[in-house]
Amino acid sequence: MIGPLNHVGVAVPDIGKAIDFYRDVLGATDITEPKVLAPQGVTYAFVTLPSGQVELIEPYGETSPILKYLERNPKGGQHHICFEVKDIHEAKATMEARGMRVLNEPRIGAHGTLVIFLHPGDSGGVLIELMETPQAEHE
Amino acid sequence: MIGPLNHVGVAVPDIGKAIDFYRDVLGATDITEPKVLAPQGVTYAFVTLPSGQVELIEPYGETSPILKYLERNPKGGQHHICFEVKDIHEAKATMEARGMRVLNEPRIGAHGTLVIFLHPGDSGGVLIELMETPQAEHE
Repeated sequence: MIGPLNHVGVAVPDIGKAIDFYRDVLGATDITEPKVLAPQGVTYAFVTLPSGQVELIEPYGETSPILKYLERNPKGGQHHICFEVKDIHEAKATMEARGMRVLNEPRIGAHGTLVIFLHPGDSGGVLIELMETPQAEHE
Repeated sequence: MIGPLNHVGVAVPDIGKAIDFYRDVLGATDITEPKVLAPQGVTYAFVTLPSGQVELIEPYGETSPILKYLERNPKGGQHHICFEVKDIHEAKATMEARGMRVLNEPRIGAHGTLVIFLHPGDSGGVLIELMETPQAEHE
């Protein structure tokens, strides 16, 4: 059911410094400008590699879920793993039928397609995001 | 400099149960049999997706570095991110020249090619593995 590993979400206290690190130290050349995704409480930027992406996420707003993560991990760290699925509603129903706690109704994520998150307590301590594959990638 | 996102390393207390979860709940169909990599103190299995992999790693031996990780995160969690590089010795020299602490001399990793790890304190709390791209993938 799960498709490609789309990206790894990395929480960062300062997205500007994180972009500098991925560009100047690791040598990544394709990094998007930071954008706000208010409903998820994040400012994000994608580091696009020849395959796969790293999503840098900085807290946005006072209720950002990333704030709690950074309290426990002040330097930042790996926050979630995102796998693609063909149909988010079907994926949600399947996950629930298999006993997983789904944390939200499908909502638009950073790639502009619907996403859900699975409770890390049901998936070996890993926060898993499922995102519907962007249409362009089907063409 | 960094190439494809090769895999995400996920520490697990019980690799058999983790394989069951990725197969039966998430629906992954291509999962390798667990193998021991004694020098790194792990038993590992790869969940291969249409692109990208998840490397499940269970502690092996009493000095496994994964034991400490699981003490802090008993259910498991994201342990490292692995990016491919063309030449590991060149990558090591470049990382050191850019002020990064490299944790080991290049050694054979789970894909049979040389790997190094970077100190997470220098890379935003993320343990980064760099691995030389397997030759077969160049052909």
